[in-house]
Amino acid sequence: MRDFLPAEKARRERVLAVIRDRYRAHGFDEIETPVMEDYARLHSGIGGDNEKLAYNVLKRGLEPGDIRAAAGEPAALTDLGLRYDLTVPLARFYASHRGELPGVFRAIQIAPVWRAERPQKGRYRQFMQCDIDIIGDASAQAEAELIAATLDAVDALGLVGASVRINDRRALDWMLESFGFGLDERPGVLITIDKLDKIGHDGVVAELRQRHVTPGAVDAFEAFTRRPMTMEYHPYGERQIRKALPHDAPDEIVEHLVGIGEAVAAARPSADAGSGGIPLVFDPFLVRGMGYYTGTIFELAHPSVGYSLGGGGRYDGMIGRFLGSDVPAVGFSLGFERLVELIDERADVSVGAVVLVYDRDVPLAELMTHKARLVAGGSRVRLEPRTKNLKALLERAASDGYTAFATVGAGAASVEARPLA
Amino acid sequence: MRDFLPAEKARRERVLAVIRDRYRAHGFDEIETPVMEDYARLHSGIGGDNEKLAYNVLKRGLEPGDIRAAAGEPAALTDLGLRYDLTVPLARFYASHRGELPGVFRAIQIAPVWRAERPQKGRYRQFMQCDIDIIGDASAQAEAELIAATLDAVDALGLVGASVRINDRRALDWMLESFGFGLDERPGVLITIDKLDKIGHDGVVAELRQRHVTPGAVDAFEAFTRRPMTMEYHPYGERQIRKALPHDAPDEIVEHLVGIGEAVAAARPSADAGSGGIPLVFDPFLVRGMGYYTGTIFELAHPSVGYSLGGGGRYDGMIGRFLGSDVPAVGFSLGFERLVELIDERADVSVGAVVLVYDRDVPLAELMTHKARLVAGGSRVRLEPRTKNLKALLERAASDGYTAFATVGAGAASVEARPLA
Repeated sequence: MRDFLPAEKARRERVLAVIRDRYRAHGFDEIETPVMEDYARLHSGIGGDNEKLAYNVLKRGLEPGDIRAAAGEPAALTDLGLRYDLTVPLARFYASHRGELPGVFRAIQIAPVWRAERPQKGRYRQFMQCDIDIIGDASAQAEAELIAATLDAVDALGLVGASVRINDRRALDWMLESFGFGLDERPGVLITIDKLDKIGHDGVVAELRQRHVTPGAVDAFEAFTRRPMTMEYHPYGERQIRKALPHDAPDEIVEHLVGIGEAVAAARPSADAGSGGIPLVFDPFLVRGMGYYTGTIFELAHPSVGYSLGGGGRYDGMIGRFLGSDVPAVGFSLGFERLVELIDERADVSVGAVVLVYDRDVPLAELMTHKARLVAGGSRVRLEPRTKNLKALLERAASDGYTAFATVGAGAASVEARPLA
Repeated sequence: MRDFLPAEKARRERVLAVIRDRYRAHGFDEIETPVMEDYARLHSGIGGDNEKLAYNVLKRGLEPGDIRAAAGEPAALTDLGLRYDLTVPLARFYASHRGELPGVFRAIQIAPVWRAERPQKGRYRQFMQCDIDIIGDASAQAEAELIAATLDAVDALGLVGASVRINDRRALDWMLESFGFGLDERPGVLITIDKLDKIGHDGVVAELRQRHVTPGAVDAFEAFTRRPMTMEYHPYGERQIRKALPHDAPDEIVEHLVGIGEAVAAARPSADAGSGGIPLVFDPFLVRGMGYYTGTIFELAHPSVGYSLGGGGRYDGMIGRFLGSDVPAVGFSLGFERLVELIDERADVSVGAVVLVYDRDVPLAELMTHKARLVAGGSRVRLEPRTKNLKALLERAASDGYTAFATVGAGAASVEARPLA
């Protein structure tokens, strides 16, 4: 868990403002839920491995007798926990407020989550998530709107060269079945395939053989994957997707994937003329860890880093668990902490930021009048008493994002701001 | 703890953006600290009664044996808690990062806090606080900058008629001493005086007599307070402050209070011409509950409500407790939840918000092209399939803040947005 000092906090807020602005432009609406959710809801199984990482909150007003009565069972001592993602709270929110929301609900959530991870580089125990979700639309339009909004946000942040890798859990499942993997074997097989980026093709095949899954299925997998594993096709279209899958892949799945690609291309007419075309990649071996995905899955990738900058997918089953009826849902979560490190976000210099350096004999009332005039004129103003080393004072102010300075002595009628060179 | 739906969330974010903008203009810098702090720090005594309301977080990886070893003691089961205010985290932050911060540090903190209150109207278990603090300035300039920034924010929110009540804990203490209250009696006497707004002058005197404090002191108090209790003086100046205190009040305290008033007046030259003059009130019986205040205290009041909309004061002792050396500090906290209910904040209609109503036979790629053009033109765009009752659809969109609509059928070359009447 980290403190954010002024420069870093300002940078983070500017990045969040850009993301929020682009998501809102695409018709998404921001909501907020409490940081704490019921313990039972956080541990209902849909959070996957993250459930084990939840911070649990001690019941209030516990008496010694209550603790002894817990008989060593932590779950008896807690009734609330900090959310470990924004998807479980969204499902609870939607079930609570469905009647007050549009038929197709496009949600923005920009908020921190907590996971009791072991300390390691690049992992934080409190970190921001930026999620957009569309609830109530089973068509490829939902995926297309999410991806178009995400790519627009990434563009607005000046992150050139990002792309979205897409797959479909149903395609994966169909592919594993067509290779001959049994239903019980497939979750384990997926865990191994998910390591493809790390251990490579040969590593995956070796690990599958160690898992003692159906040997013929591993042979079929190996034969198929002698072809290039991650394929980048431009344009992303039906022919290319069919080519990347074993023959006779189900039409329903292919058409859904093709529809997404065409719609994202239509939403980015200018991208055709650019260097990379439409930044979509069909990746038939993209897995995504979470167990709740039921259809399309996707990840945001960037050539400068080996990890994903965000991801998401369809989770048509989850909302129904809270609601008692099936509701289609799909979401895209930006990895804000990774993104913010990649972005060269400059301070906003459109508003003059003035350091007003005053002699110590300036009466306070005069000083406040000078400050008020500069503030009223649209400036951001910091007061600093004059020190012997004015140069050091101004350098420090410049490093804090100030762009101009003025000096003032007692009795001055007005002050004039000059650029901080 | 509450969910915020889109309209309310947008309203809250707009109010926060106004406050943040004004605070930044006055030279304050935003920081952020983790939601969780060490249990020991949250329970070091400086949090006062709020310490009892802290949510405590269960230690991770507790085994049944650990719980039995706790021998019924809750404190043995927890090591972290959710912050109940932003002052304790600020003190910890400043002690950790002093070397990286300016000599006079002006901090903004806009963030949620948590208190395990009993459910009651207007009290929330998670609520936002908006604090500004100045660390490292013992002069009246610090109070003046805080109050000027707060009044500017309140003005920018359109809340007309707000005023700041000021007092000084040292003046209160001196006054109680001059009446003849013993040192040990004074904390209890202050608790009673703090009820003045609720139980009135006679109620306070009666309760003081019940407390069995020095009878002569209660007589002196009663005689003094036969005069008007809360005095509103315009202009707020030395003569008026001396008049509101028993004679021979210490010069140091009076001059500090007078300096604040002159400086705030200087910062608001236009206010002189307005109806209410400078919105400062010296209230010699203002107490403020927190035990850590050491000098000036203040509250934001508004004629439409009987409770304060924020407050703060000087707490010169607290930072030193974490740092081992004395550091002057003063802060002003806005009661955001109360403020946001009073403010009539209109939706931002400067950006066109367009509902794009499409026939169901429009190909998705066409639809996304139309949406992308509107977004690129600066609009916020929501897609809605045409329904039989178009009127109801548009009314719903208008209530969600949309200001224009367009309809589109298959093959349309372009769409034209019209105002939502």
